Amino acid sequence: MASPAPPLPVPGFHAVVPAGGAGTRLWPLSRRADPKFLHDLTGSGRTLLQETWDRLAPLAGPSGVVLVTGEAHAEAVRLQLPGLAPDALLVEPSPRDSMAAIGLAAAVLRRRHGDDVVLGSFAADHVIARADRFAAAVAEAVAAARAGYVVTIGIAPREPSTAFGYIEVGDPLGLDAAPSARHVAAFAEKPDAATARAYLATGRYRWNAGMFVVVADVLLRHLAAHQPGLHDGLVAIADAWDTGERDRVLAARWPGLTRIAIDHAIAEPVAATGGVAVVPGDFEWDDVGDWASLAGLLPARDDGARVLGPADAALLRDCDGAVVVPAGERLVAVLGVPDAVVVDTADAVLVTTRARAQEVKGIVDALARRGRADLL
Amino acid sequence: MASPAPPLPVPGFHAVVPAGGAGTRLWPLSRRADPKFLHDLTGSGRTLLQETWDRLAPLAGPSGVVLVTGEAHAEAVRLQLPGLAPDALLVEPSPRDSMAAIGLAAAVLRRRHGDDVVLGSFAADHVIARADRFAAAVAEAVAAARAGYVVTIGIAPREPSTAFGYIEVGDPLGLDAAPSARHVAAFAEKPDAATARAYLATGRYRWNAGMFVVVADVLLRHLAAHQPGLHDGLVAIADAWDTGERDRVLAARWPGLTRIAIDHAIAEPVAATGGVAVVPGDFEWDDVGDWASLAGLLPARDDGARVLGPADAALLRDCDGAVVVPAGERLVAVLGVPDAVVVDTADAVLVTTRARAQEVKGIVDALARRGRADLL
Repeated sequence: MASPAPPLPVPGFHAVVPAGGAGTRLWPLSRRADPKFLHDLTGSGRTLLQETWDRLAPLAGPSGVVLVTGEAHAEAVRLQLPGLAPDALLVEPSPRDSMAAIGLAAAVLRRRHGDDVVLGSFAADHVIARADRFAAAVAEAVAAARAGYVVTIGIAPREPSTAFGYIEVGDPLGLDAAPSARHVAAFAEKPDAATARAYLATGRYRWNAGMFVVVADVLLRHLAAHQPGLHDGLVAIADAWDTGERDRVLAARWPGLTRIAIDHAIAEPVAATGGVAVVPGDFEWDDVGDWASLAGLLPARDDGARVLGPADAALLRDCDGAVVVPAGERLVAVLGVPDAVVVDTADAVLVTTRARAQEVKGIVDALARRGRADLL
Repeated sequence: MASPAPPLPVPGFHAVVPAGGAGTRLWPLSRRADPKFLHDLTGSGRTLLQETWDRLAPLAGPSGVVLVTGEAHAEAVRLQLPGLAPDALLVEPSPRDSMAAIGLAAAVLRRRHGDDVVLGSFAADHVIARADRFAAAVAEAVAAARAGYVVTIGIAPREPSTAFGYIEVGDPLGLDAAPSARHVAAFAEKPDAATARAYLATGRYRWNAGMFVVVADVLLRHLAAHQPGLHDGLVAIADAWDTGERDRVLAARWPGLTRIAIDHAIAEPVAATGGVAVVPGDFEWDDVGDWASLAGLLPARDDGARVLGPADAALLRDCDGAVVVPAGERLVAVLGVPDAVVVDTADAVLVTTRARAQEVKGIVDALARRGRADLL
C-alpha cells in the first residue's frame, strides 16, 4: 500500500480522522473495546488506523494529522501512533456522531491556524491501495475546497455494490486548479441491486467513501446555517479547548450536542444548493464492512482460500473462496466448506459464509440480548 | 440409556473391554492422549467408557469386568472407573491389535476362574440405547457360547450403512437355551452403497458390532489352531501375569506377538467351518465413527442443531442439521451453514459438514505430516 514516490505536503492542509465505530460486522475480531480500526485486516503488519496515518502524514505533515476518538480508545490510539502530536488527539467524552467529531476538529483547527486552514476528513478504518493516486485526489480536492466548495472524493465503482452510498456527478466546476472537479448533483443512499446497476449504466455515479475536504471556516459557516445549536456548542468548546476551561466547558456543552452525521448535517443540504463538489478517486478503496469484503483484500492461497493470520495456523481442504482468520493462537481446520468464513479468537469463534457475512451484526445483537457484554 | 429394570448377573460371565483406538475421525476432541472412549459424546454426563461399564457391571458383576488398555491410558481408565478391581486392569506394553488384547484377557481369566468361564468382549467406545435389550442379547449369547460356539451379536440395521461390516445370518442353531441363535453364514466387509442395499433387501444381514461372547477355553483352542504362535505367547504371559514374573515375561514375549484383529484371527475362519453363531441385538447401537454419527445420538434443539456441550455456548442461526461441539470454553457462533460440523477445543477448531465428516482423518494425517504432534 506504499506510494511509489512520497507526495509533498499539501500547504495548509490538515487531516482529520474520526476514529470511532465498533465494526460490528467484523465480530468476533472487532469488539467495542477493540474496534476495527485498531486491527490489521490486510495482513500488512499495520492496523487500519496506522495505514490511515501512513497515507495522511505525508500529505498533512505529521503535525497536521488530528485524531478524534473516544476516551475508551485514546490510549490505544496513542500507542499505535507514536508520531501523533500530543495536542492532535481530540478526545470526545461520549459519541456524538460524525458531525460533532469533524466539527470539533474544524473549530479547534480554525482557532489554532486561522480561517483559511483546509481540513480533509477520512475514516480510520478504510483500506486504500495506491497512496499516490489518493494523494493526487486529495491535492485536487484541496484546490477545489479553496474555491469555497465542500469537496468529496468519489470512488470509481468496481461493481454495482449495494453496500455503499453513491454520488451522482454533475457538471464540471471549471476550476483551473482542479480540472476534474465537478458539482455533486445529489447523494444517494445505499441502493438495491437493480438501482445500483442502473446507476453504473449511466456512468454518472461514484461510490461515496465519506471523505470530505473543506476550508474549516466554510464548513463552520455551513454548520451555523443548518445546525446552529451544534455550531455554537462546538465553537464554545473549541474556544476553551487549549485553555484550562476545556473540561468545564466540555462537561457543560458536549452532552447536549445534536447527534447527526456530516452527510445529513452538511453534505446533502449543501449539495442541494450547488455547494458540494466531487473529485474522482481512481484508487482501490474498501470500507471493509464485513468479512466477505476481506476476500477482496487478501491474496488467494494455493488452496483458494484467503487467510488473515499465520499461514500455518489454517489447514484448509476444498474451501475455495473461504476467508479464514486464525486470531486465537489455535489451529483452524476447515474441510469441504467453500466460501466459508471462519474467524477464531480467544473467547469466540464465528462460522458463516461470505453470502451471510452481512448478518453477523445479528449475532452480536443476540449476544447483547443474552447479556454477554463480555463478548461484545 | 439406563435399563428400566437392572438385569441379574449372568453366572460365570466375565466382560472384557479392549479400550484402545484413537478415534481419529472425532478429532479435535479425540486425541491420541485423550481418545474417544474417555469422552462423553452423548451429553449423558458419562464417558463412553463409563457407559460401557454401566452396561456390563450389572451383567458380569463389578468384579467381573476386565479392562485391557495401553500404558498411556491406564491412569485415566482408573480415574473414570473407580469400581474397577485393581487386578481387572490389564495394561498392554504396546498395541498388538484386538486378538492379543482379547486373547490375553481370555488366558488370564481362564487361569483365574477355570476352563468354563465365559467372556464377552465389547468395545469401550460404542453407544447403546436400551440396556435391557442389550442384557437380554448377552444372556442368550452366553447360553449359545456354553454350547461351544463363538457367538456374536448382530445388530438390526437401521439403514444400508456403508460404515459397518455385516453378518450374513444362516440357519437356527436349535438350542433351547438360545432360541433365536443362528449360525453365521459369513462375515462381510464394509460394503458399497448398492451392496448394502442388496444386503438389507434379503433380510438376512445384520450389522457387525464387533461383539464376541465365547467360553475362554473355546476361544483359546481356536487361537491355538489358527494362530499357534500368538496363542503360545499369550498363554505364557497369562501364566506369569499374577506372579512376580509378569514384567519379565511380558518384556520377552509381548513385542513378538502377531498383530491381528480377532475378526481375521478367529471369527472369519471359524465361521467358515460352522463354529460361529449370532444372536439378534435389537437395540440402538452406534460406533460413533465420526461427527456425522453424533447427529443421531443427540437431541435436536429448537434451532434444528445438535449441540454436545453447554447449550449457551452455541449461538446458531439457520443451521438446521448442524452438529456443534463447544468444548473449548468459548462461544461458538454459526450462521447460515446447514449440516455444519463445528468442533471447538482449547487448541484447535474443526469446521466441516456432515457429508465430509468421514474425511476428518485426512486432516489429522496432514497435521502429522506437518509435524504437529501437539495436535494429534
